[in-house]
Amino acid sequence: MKLRYSPASPFARKVRIAAAVLGLTDRIELVLADTNSAEDSLRRENPLGKIPTLVLDDGTTLYDSQVIEQYLDWLGGGGKLLPAGGLDRFKTLTAQQLADGITDAALLLVYEGRFREPAEHGPRWKAYQADKVARGLASFEAAPPAAGVIDVSTIALACSLGYQDLRFEGRWRASHPRLVAWLEGFAAAVPAFEETRFKG
Amino acid sequence: MKLRYSPASPFARKVRIAAAVLGLTDRIELVLADTNSAEDSLRRENPLGKIPTLVLDDGTTLYDSQVIEQYLDWLGGGGKLLPAGGLDRFKTLTAQQLADGITDAALLLVYEGRFREPAEHGPRWKAYQADKVARGLASFEAAPPAAGVIDVSTIALACSLGYQDLRFEGRWRASHPRLVAWLEGFAAAVPAFEETRFKG
Repeated sequence: MKLRYSPASPFARKVRIAAAVLGLTDRIELVLADTNSAEDSLRRENPLGKIPTLVLDDGTTLYDSQVIEQYLDWLGGGGKLLPAGGLDRFKTLTAQQLADGITDAALLLVYEGRFREPAEHGPRWKAYQADKVARGLASFEAAPPAAGVIDVSTIALACSLGYQDLRFEGRWRASHPRLVAWLEGFAAAVPAFEETRFKG
Repeated sequence: MKLRYSPASPFARKVRIAAAVLGLTDRIELVLADTNSAEDSLRRENPLGKIPTLVLDDGTTLYDSQVIEQYLDWLGGGGKLLPAGGLDRFKTLTAQQLADGITDAALLLVYEGRFREPAEHGPRWKAYQADKVARGLASFEAAPPAAGVIDVSTIALACSLGYQDLRFEGRWRASHPRLVAWLEGFAAAVPAFEETRFKG
């Protein structure tokens, strides 16, 4: 199977880490995608034109990152990256959603510069998104994940913090000491986190 | 349990329809939320400040709409709104993601007017999002869901089309006759679709 990705995408990074944790890296061919090009096959594989998108050998495409990770977990036998059932499953999925929601808001802030002329920047919109990032990070700082938990929610959180490092100069670090310590532990336990860090 | 919602939200509508299909409407108290108010408890219940958010009786909160629907499906015995396992589960989740992605892009177009002064509007950004809507709708038009299927993906598609009707004057209808017919069949089979239509 092929993973359409870009090396700086925080959501593609989640999938690459999940594959590594599940021992599936060798089964996935990484294929660069250009989300801005109408020539790239990506928009046929995923009409939303988003990465990551997983293309199976029979041509079936799966997205978004949350769906792909659940698929990989199922391929890997199931129940490894999220509880198979019970309320804990939905709590884990909600924590994943909070982490991914922080990343979504951060991406919208980055896109502000990428898709708009300076005069088109919207201070009210940017504050609205930045507040989501701030509240989300504060919520995780108040109750960081337990050490040693490697699942879809902690992978999402690590990649969200990694994206803060990449695009916002790690400014979150000074005010979130417990999350800094948590991320250090996660990185030590999951070599794929550092291996997938964008160094471009 | 309480569902924080607004009557015009397409994502909250999905959850209300899912609850009705599962026979769980009586167990859910609808509680209006103001996503723009810092006074509303929503931002404590969900740091992202997004609706729908489900608040369980013990205070646990679940989001987003996809997670809530899976939780309700589990409460209702499981396997009713999406296949419990197998590749079909991931295909259904991907179709749900495509429909929700169309809604996301449409919401970003609406937010353009809601959060920005006219001079701050970004034609390049709007075209980028409008193209996602157009490609997504074209993809569903080329292969509409089979008649009679009521699951998380078709609920998401119906609400996405309903949102096009609400905010974009139903302009999609002229160029998507197969989807118009499909939506008519869905509405006939699922009374909650019409019952949750925003008439404000």
